[in-house]
Amino acid sequence: MDFNNSDLYTPHLTTQKLVPENQETPIHFVTNKITPTEYFFRRNHFPYPQINQQSFLLPVYGQVDKPLTFPYDYIRSMPYRSIAAVIECSGNKRSYFNPKTYGEQWEDGAISQGIWKGVPLKSLLNLTGIKDTAKEVVFIGQDQGKRTDIDGIFNYARSLPMEIALHDDTIIAYELNENPIPYEHGFPLRLIVPGWYGMASVKWLREIQVIDKKFEGPFQTLDYVYYPHKYDDEGAAPVTVIKINSIIAQPQNYSILDLKTHEISGIAWTGGNSAITDVELSFDNGLTWNKTNLFGYINQPYTWTNWKYLWEVKHKGEYTIMCRAKDTAGNMQPMIADWNRKGYGYNAIYTIKVKVE
Amino acid sequence: MDFNNSDLYTPHLTTQKLVPENQETPIHFVTNKITPTEYFFRRNHFPYPQINQQSFLLPVYGQVDKPLTFPYDYIRSMPYRSIAAVIECSGNKRSYFNPKTYGEQWEDGAISQGIWKGVPLKSLLNLTGIKDTAKEVVFIGQDQGKRTDIDGIFNYARSLPMEIALHDDTIIAYELNENPIPYEHGFPLRLIVPGWYGMASVKWLREIQVIDKKFEGPFQTLDYVYYPHKYDDEGAAPVTVIKINSIIAQPQNYSILDLKTHEISGIAWTGGNSAITDVELSFDNGLTWNKTNLFGYINQPYTWTNWKYLWEVKHKGEYTIMCRAKDTAGNMQPMIADWNRKGYGYNAIYTIKVKVE
Repeated sequence: MDFNNSDLYTPHLTTQKLVPENQETPIHFVTNKITPTEYFFRRNHFPYPQINQQSFLLPVYGQVDKPLTFPYDYIRSMPYRSIAAVIECSGNKRSYFNPKTYGEQWEDGAISQGIWKGVPLKSLLNLTGIKDTAKEVVFIGQDQGKRTDIDGIFNYARSLPMEIALHDDTIIAYELNENPIPYEHGFPLRLIVPGWYGMASVKWLREIQVIDKKFEGPFQTLDYVYYPHKYDDEGAAPVTVIKINSIIAQPQNYSILDLKTHEISGIAWTGGNSAITDVELSFDNGLTWNKTNLFGYINQPYTWTNWKYLWEVKHKGEYTIMCRAKDTAGNMQPMIADWNRKGYGYNAIYTIKVKVE
Repeated sequence: MDFNNSDLYTPHLTTQKLVPENQETPIHFVTNKITPTEYFFRRNHFPYPQINQQSFLLPVYGQVDKPLTFPYDYIRSMPYRSIAAVIECSGNKRSYFNPKTYGEQWEDGAISQGIWKGVPLKSLLNLTGIKDTAKEVVFIGQDQGKRTDIDGIFNYARSLPMEIALHDDTIIAYELNENPIPYEHGFPLRLIVPGWYGMASVKWLREIQVIDKKFEGPFQTLDYVYYPHKYDDEGAAPVTVIKINSIIAQPQNYSILDLKTHEISGIAWTGGNSAITDVELSFDNGLTWNKTNLFGYINQPYTWTNWKYLWEVKHKGEYTIMCRAKDTAGNMQPMIADWNRKGYGYNAIYTIKVKVE
């Protein structure tokens, strides 16, 4: 008998759906600086695409001076950047919205952190040149299929405005954590847009098109839009940068603890070029706040920051623990997240209850 | 590159806690007649015990005529029974209680089904004889540790009244699904009490003691008791047989569907010696009910019954789908589950919402 079963005490991806495959990182148990690749969350719109010879060529065309097709090996030979960055699905924490919203009922784990290595998109566009008419850059993935709301077969595709496309940190990545990007995470080439929600980081890149107008694809104009109202589209706004956010990883919600000092720990993250400055806990429903100790990646954009706090519990009873993060741009988590019909960007102050007995 | 990654489209155990290890079956994706052993849920009170030479001996003593110690190989040589049975944690679905209750926040997957092979406990007790003073049989596991509520080191231990202990289907099991019981599920010997919640089926059996009074161990008198009130113990009643229950496995709650005919499917189960007779769906908040087609194990106690229903959706919109099971004893799932402080036995009519667009 195998008494040293290596499968014991091992966390697993949390399965939300099999086809397309949507599985969460077991984030309450895996808050390492770098998420081990096998624990990276998977969020797909379609079944996995076929990867063939064509997949190793990246055409860049449209409003450019000279259309070029970049071979994979050529891209790997260019000057690169390595960027530690959170990838967070904009639907992360959707299950917390009240009223609830339709879609994958993600809990806290549609987020992972990795080191992405690739060539700045700008380097490719410098070689093709960009016409003055250029307004957006469209990234088309190889994954395709049907949608529930409109007829047709669609490839997953998203656009970026020129200023983001030309940012030094917007890269065409070919490595994750020092290995070729795994098939399920976008092999061979994946766009990485640090600081933006994950829908921007198109996997299995098939082609890049520079266009002279706004991109109107359904993953740009129907999905990944904040609709503040249930029955009309008034006030609709595109989902872009990651909102400031945090979780208490341990202890877990509704857990039962004994009467001793407990370490409370978790992660906090924010979007754009901001960095986390503070993570604070409240044990009195938000009246007073206690700073936690930050570690891991600190004072750095794109990444989550780890935090911990030693909680000396003196009395038995039920406790509510609230956690909020602040960043260099002056952002702070709100008490209540902005409700929106498709359930994106949930980032309310993280609250748990525990019982000490 | 590995384009045939066997890890794709693979469900995983859902991790609730690592030490002690508590992980759910991904029950929405694994509703086979027999749960593959790697998908069996794990519910532990303590870290896994050490298994040594002593573990292969089973002493039976106390209010017996002749105390005996049964070697593992001897037990395996005796006439056996093979019983297909659900094992369900009494905390399964705890996360649905409103108000919420403390403890592991199990969703639907603290349940699995397997074929258990073993020797009836009665056969062992026939060899030892039972004194007239015998009232209960106590089963002591090898797993031990501290509790949060009272001081001391405790082994996990539970008792059964004589009539259940002597039931033909109460077995000392040594095989699960035609293999030795895996270490994490109770190797080498596990008590199996079909029709009862899982707390009765003591893993890693160390000894069996026949006693002349009620067993007072904390897993008998503090845990696994229905406490109907939050602040007092009035009306406390022991957790025993499984309550009638069901889930809609697919589609999942808050999923978005296209306008076509969808198969709705799931499982239903009940406790004691009862069998499922009907599983019904309502699309009008319980006004009318539609029978589903039963398959898998039918008209059989201890097991879950699979069911499915072809749902012809004619109009776009939001739908509430309710599911209720009935059994041979006349039990039916209630609209609201009986709330109890420790969150056991949740079995309300299973309700999901879906959006058709």
